[in-house]
Amino acid sequence: MQSDKPSDIVTAAFLVIGDEILSGRTKDKNIGHVADVLTMTGIELREVRVVPDEEDRIVEAVNALRSRYDYVFTSGGIGPTHDDITADSIAKAFGVSIDYDPRAMAILEAHYAPGQFTDARKRMARIPAGADLIENPVSKAPGFRIGNVHVMAGVPNIMQAMLDAVVPTLRTGRKILSRSVDAALPESRIADALRQIQKDHPETVIGSYPRNQDGRYSTQLVIRARDEAPLNRATEAVEAAVAAALSNA
Amino acid sequence: MQSDKPSDIVTAAFLVIGDEILSGRTKDKNIGHVADVLTMTGIELREVRVVPDEEDRIVEAVNALRSRYDYVFTSGGIGPTHDDITADSIAKAFGVSIDYDPRAMAILEAHYAPGQFTDARKRMARIPAGADLIENPVSKAPGFRIGNVHVMAGVPNIMQAMLDAVVPTLRTGRKILSRSVDAALPESRIADALRQIQKDHPETVIGSYPRNQDGRYSTQLVIRARDEAPLNRATEAVEAAVAAALSNA
Repeated sequence: MQSDKPSDIVTAAFLVIGDEILSGRTKDKNIGHVADVLTMTGIELREVRVVPDEEDRIVEAVNALRSRYDYVFTSGGIGPTHDDITADSIAKAFGVSIDYDPRAMAILEAHYAPGQFTDARKRMARIPAGADLIENPVSKAPGFRIGNVHVMAGVPNIMQAMLDAVVPTLRTGRKILSRSVDAALPESRIADALRQIQKDHPETVIGSYPRNQDGRYSTQLVIRARDEAPLNRATEAVEAAVAAALSNA
Repeated sequence: MQSDKPSDIVTAAFLVIGDEILSGRTKDKNIGHVADVLTMTGIELREVRVVPDEEDRIVEAVNALRSRYDYVFTSGGIGPTHDDITADSIAKAFGVSIDYDPRAMAILEAHYAPGQFTDARKRMARIPAGADLIENPVSKAPGFRIGNVHVMAGVPNIMQAMLDAVVPTLRTGRKILSRSVDAALPESRIADALRQIQKDHPETVIGSYPRNQDGRYSTQLVIRARDEAPLNRATEAVEAAVAAALSNA
């Protein structure tokens, strides 16, 4: 659905960087959280990608996504170890230099006990030129923003804290309103009616999400719109269609 | 890591099709499962994308991924409702026609009670020309394979059953062997040693995955290789480095 005013719509992509997600060793917990937070904020998450910890793959994905969406968020690969190559890859994607950032060095120096701010830990202060820092209240090593790209940690509680720090700085669009109708029916029983309702209410987007729990089918119908009036009209039509299908059971 | 024999490596991408994942309304349960199954099978999952239920986005993603990886797996959008547009989008991506498939029609006709095989349900028999069916033991409506693309349902238990049906038909590579070492240390404490070990053991890939549970940091170190001997050598070096770091605590 496109609004008449394109400035009402703010889009985003989320890039998960990590071999461990692709191998199955770690199960992603960030995609759902980012989706929830952006949706609540009035930003449309339009694409997610998961790529390995490889420079060319990160550079390619970041450049594809940052040119296409208003915002890009990344998670993973900003720690102190040799396989943490996100910051360098982002610098390469933007064609800027990367070095030890005095602001990040100061934060980390204050955090570690004397003698504990090792070379490995200093790596976490490497920030691309021109980037702003993103605060990390959990473990101090900051994320950063460069252009429209926000680079965050992969560990879920740190990523969540960084996202909370970033959200107030984002331009947000008009929130998409939604209603949901739960139908104790397989979706095929109301599919014809739904197709007609979608045609009759072009200002809305109607989604049908089937479930199968313990062998019983049910369907969650979600109606989305930017305005209340068309949302209510379409929701009433969906409720009537579900009631009619149930009475024909 | 590249093997000497490229045929030893079989790669795959997974494409999740669904507005509901991007809005956060549904939390993905398929990525981790597909990653686990492919890894166990000896296929490297190299990329995941999540795109909305929009034809141009599905076509673009399928064409980008199928030209790049040995196999593509998709989930979502093959049900009976108006928002299920995956089959038509795949046909468009391959430049082939799509129609009611006699094999799929027979399966569904046999499944539904007389008079219950409605027009909406018949939509689930629309299969691109030249595709093979993928059996659906759970709810009968089949997935399909066309070229190197395997199109599966989004509902997790149905997708898992379809993936189980597909796996025996796939070419598989040499499995990647792995060992893991759990270290009760923040990763920055062993990062310097790990960097050296990675340099000394180029036939392996060493990953470092930090965790933060109840305020305590620990790190899982994962060593991967295609052969047992270098895997064991690198693992011993990692264990020695962890022991040394702990004794310096």
